[in-house]
Amino acid sequence: MLRDPSAKYQAFPQIDLPDRQWPSRTITAPPRWLSTDLRDGNQSIIDPMDGVKKNRFFDLLVEVGVKEIEIGFPSAGATEFDFINGLVRSGRIPEDVTVQVLTQSREELIRTSFESLDGAHSAIVHLYNAVSPAWREIVFGMTPQQVIQVAVDGAKVLRDEAGKRPATDWHFQYSPETFSTAEIDFSIEVCAAVMEVLQPTPDKPIILNLPATVEAATPNIYADQIEYFCRHLPNRESAVISLHTHNDRGTGVAAAELGLMAGADRVEGCLFGNGERTGNCCLVTMALNMYTQGVHPGLDFSDIDRVIETVEYCNQLPVHQRHPYGGELVYTAFSGSHQDAIKKGFGAREGQNDERWRVPYLPIDPADIGRNYEAVIRVNSQSGKGGFAWVLEQDQGLKLPKKMQADFSPYVQDMADKLGRELNAEDIWQTFRTAYHVQTPNKRFQLVSYEESRAADGTRLFAGTIAVEGKEQSVSGRGNGLISSVMATLREAFGVELEVVDYTEHALGTGTDANAAAYLDCRTPDGRTVWGCGIDEDVATASVRAVLSAANGALHT
Amino acid sequence: MLRDPSAKYQAFPQIDLPDRQWPSRTITAPPRWLSTDLRDGNQSIIDPMDGVKKNRFFDLLVEVGVKEIEIGFPSAGATEFDFINGLVRSGRIPEDVTVQVLTQSREELIRTSFESLDGAHSAIVHLYNAVSPAWREIVFGMTPQQVIQVAVDGAKVLRDEAGKRPATDWHFQYSPETFSTAEIDFSIEVCAAVMEVLQPTPDKPIILNLPATVEAATPNIYADQIEYFCRHLPNRESAVISLHTHNDRGTGVAAAELGLMAGADRVEGCLFGNGERTGNCCLVTMALNMYTQGVHPGLDFSDIDRVIETVEYCNQLPVHQRHPYGGELVYTAFSGSHQDAIKKGFGAREGQNDERWRVPYLPIDPADIGRNYEAVIRVNSQSGKGGFAWVLEQDQGLKLPKKMQADFSPYVQDMADKLGRELNAEDIWQTFRTAYHVQTPNKRFQLVSYEESRAADGTRLFAGTIAVEGKEQSVSGRGNGLISSVMATLREAFGVELEVVDYTEHALGTGTDANAAAYLDCRTPDGRTVWGCGIDEDVATASVRAVLSAANGALHT
Repeated sequence: MLRDPSAKYQAFPQIDLPDRQWPSRTITAPPRWLSTDLRDGNQSIIDPMDGVKKNRFFDLLVEVGVKEIEIGFPSAGATEFDFINGLVRSGRIPEDVTVQVLTQSREELIRTSFESLDGAHSAIVHLYNAVSPAWREIVFGMTPQQVIQVAVDGAKVLRDEAGKRPATDWHFQYSPETFSTAEIDFSIEVCAAVMEVLQPTPDKPIILNLPATVEAATPNIYADQIEYFCRHLPNRESAVISLHTHNDRGTGVAAAELGLMAGADRVEGCLFGNGERTGNCCLVTMALNMYTQGVHPGLDFSDIDRVIETVEYCNQLPVHQRHPYGGELVYTAFSGSHQDAIKKGFGAREGQNDERWRVPYLPIDPADIGRNYEAVIRVNSQSGKGGFAWVLEQDQGLKLPKKMQADFSPYVQDMADKLGRELNAEDIWQTFRTAYHVQTPNKRFQLVSYEESRAADGTRLFAGTIAVEGKEQSVSGRGNGLISSVMATLREAFGVELEVVDYTEHALGTGTDANAAAYLDCRTPDGRTVWGCGIDEDVATASVRAVLSAANGALHT
Repeated sequence: MLRDPSAKYQAFPQIDLPDRQWPSRTITAPPRWLSTDLRDGNQSIIDPMDGVKKNRFFDLLVEVGVKEIEIGFPSAGATEFDFINGLVRSGRIPEDVTVQVLTQSREELIRTSFESLDGAHSAIVHLYNAVSPAWREIVFGMTPQQVIQVAVDGAKVLRDEAGKRPATDWHFQYSPETFSTAEIDFSIEVCAAVMEVLQPTPDKPIILNLPATVEAATPNIYADQIEYFCRHLPNRESAVISLHTHNDRGTGVAAAELGLMAGADRVEGCLFGNGERTGNCCLVTMALNMYTQGVHPGLDFSDIDRVIETVEYCNQLPVHQRHPYGGELVYTAFSGSHQDAIKKGFGAREGQNDERWRVPYLPIDPADIGRNYEAVIRVNSQSGKGGFAWVLEQDQGLKLPKKMQADFSPYVQDMADKLGRELNAEDIWQTFRTAYHVQTPNKRFQLVSYEESRAADGTRLFAGTIAVEGKEQSVSGRGNGLISSVMATLREAFGVELEVVDYTEHALGTGTDANAAAYLDCRTPDGRTVWGCGIDEDVATASVRAVLSAANGALHT
């Protein structure tokens, strides 16, 4: 049993902000996005990316539309330095993309970082040091004043190195690392001291990145911290406030969203939430969250499967089946009532005047991210009628009458129970063919050929060859129409008594090559319902086949 | 490129609640927990659980301490009904655990649901119908009044069926499905109408479960909905307000946490967030989030790996590597600075007077959930000194001096680059042995035996047998102490000149069987630093070995 945690863990303190404004705000514009896939992401995977993977990931980020990309930690070693400088000199960084590198606040490391960017048209040098009590006391053994001095000293080197290298358009970013677990007024003090050195202006602002290095509280607390910070930072208009959340409590996306409402301008994260431990804020989720609220995120995930493929290859980590927007199962409904509702939602769209998306259980149109509708509905033993009906319609074009769906449902459930797994479209089609003797061999009655003629009295004569358990017989019958003439034939030749209750037929596909499907709801003399289905390139023949299908069914049960 | 979403998607409307209280509240007590793993979870997996898996999952939930368990949808079919009734009659439901079943609001289905629970000591019958506009209009084609009538009619059947079956202690739950996308006042109206029928009291309250069936807004909006609902529901004190969030926007845990702050009493969810599409609120995450805030969640995840094993087996879905608390990588640090900080954090705990947890980068003590510290730090080519030093200490007991860590670091990075994968403890140990000629064959100098004696003038005489490239030689030398006498021997016999800069030694392990490890920081005449390490069961011999190790290193470079 987990012991009482009250001695070991403490509630995170609240921020004194009774007049907070963010809970009444909404997100109406996208932030500036920074991808740290090649830095925070890469440093936290089991097998870090080699140059090939890094380049492939970089190109993906550019294609997706990310304009600020953290490409590494140049002072970490020669391999990292060489990749960064190689990329900078490759000419593969578009004009409108700015690369960023991270450095600790030590003179030689900062200098190395500038050197790695030699040749860049513009770049962000990102300085950090941790400011929270646990880090000050346990990791550094420093007073708060000493921690400020580390940041200020680093900022001076930033300023001086940039001054020496006028060929590049330099931007500065400072992160008070462990911001979320630090005293908020101290974080402001450190940032203000750094700003004093770097003298940002509204036209040339500093980026202040406020990390939830370890997520330590509910996301509203982080939002309070951001709002408090924005309200108390001197010269706020000369700073771009950036968020960098982690997901230790499973609320990293929420913290970034609420932080944006609290006044931030920029969000750092990784595609599908890679990053240290539980990962960073997932940029895909956050961007598509905006999209489904009518705000264009400025990022392009219209081919999400390609994005997933590259991310999984580079990180060697899977995107989970239930990951928002990208997971394999997130547009899938197995439950019958869900399937039914989704089917109705797609149906309602056809009659809609506007584009408005309101399909039940689907927060986003799968087509918007390159997924197709067919994957939406999947059938297992828990599924109801909606599921297989959808699958039959998508896969075979069959639009089963509602009552025939009810008739077919037990066959599907039996098959799912028997197979003990999800049914695919082929399973359902085979189950249907077997249940209704459609395009199957070895059935009792099989149509070989027929002719139909109209008599002078208006009745119709059916004259055909029917194979009965493989043996062909010439048979005929007369009725008011084609179906009744076939019924009469079956009655007279084979003693099969069926009464037609209902009949529907529809085209399968479009154009002159279209087939037809006919459905026949019949009753036997002892009151049983028997369904028939016939498929043929000719509408009349489809009806004949439907009658024989019903006759086979009547004998089978 | 994603097209402009403003025509297709709309921002979710805000709730008019300017005086909301929840952002100033904190979570100070756990909610009532309901697991819907066997219902919402089971209906959304590719291969639904068979009876064996369902029973195993049920037993796990009981062991974890969940007291309310939704065990299925009895009217879905015979298999489901039989499992439910079998479980109820098995005697495996503890006295303090209440099972729950879900039913649509149709008389015969409700009756079937009651029948399935025949024999239960207590049970919750959970009635639902969807109330939001899209469902009313697209799925049901019903007016709001008709939707209320469906709920009221179902409630009457609940009341009447319960009345007929006095052997069971019945509880009622009503879910206005799609609550989060419905008009809040309409949801209250439906719930109030259901309460009118069921006449709950504070002693025998109704459970009103308010689902974010599809997560459609930032989590603060859900919290506003919950607070608004709690404030406006008539006879609030006779209702248990329950949350049921989904994770379509990646904020399902956040929504449940903020909803709890907004006044709810109960949380429904699944272990590791299984459930329709993106899943439900993850009960493990939410419970351990409370734990690390000093609030005991009342659930036991002290052996989280066993929980994961069962959940993965039953759902046939993996827990992701970055899933909060449970993922394989969430206590892992590859980055050198993180590793260093974690090491210092564990070190600081040893000198701490209290149990308070403040280890950098680790939001929870891995030991609290049955993980061990050794998995915390893993080494790849991006790792710094902290990582391998930790691994060597955990695995071999070696506490390398800081400067020796710096010396060893390039060997580790080379090896990581060479292998192109994460290094395990054995890799690091082999790299260390090779680098410092520790317990390796084929080295230049190898100690065979020695004797040490003290002369009258206080100097020491080393007289020993050393194998030089396999050939044994008797050698001797004199110095002020053991180390200097070995140094003198090497100088005189083999011309190896080394000067000792620093020396440390420590016990390996505890007790009389403990070995010793000696580290020797030496300088060569041309100013190079050479480190030696010796390990032996005797402290003096460890020193001698350390000198020979340094001599081997001096010749090797």
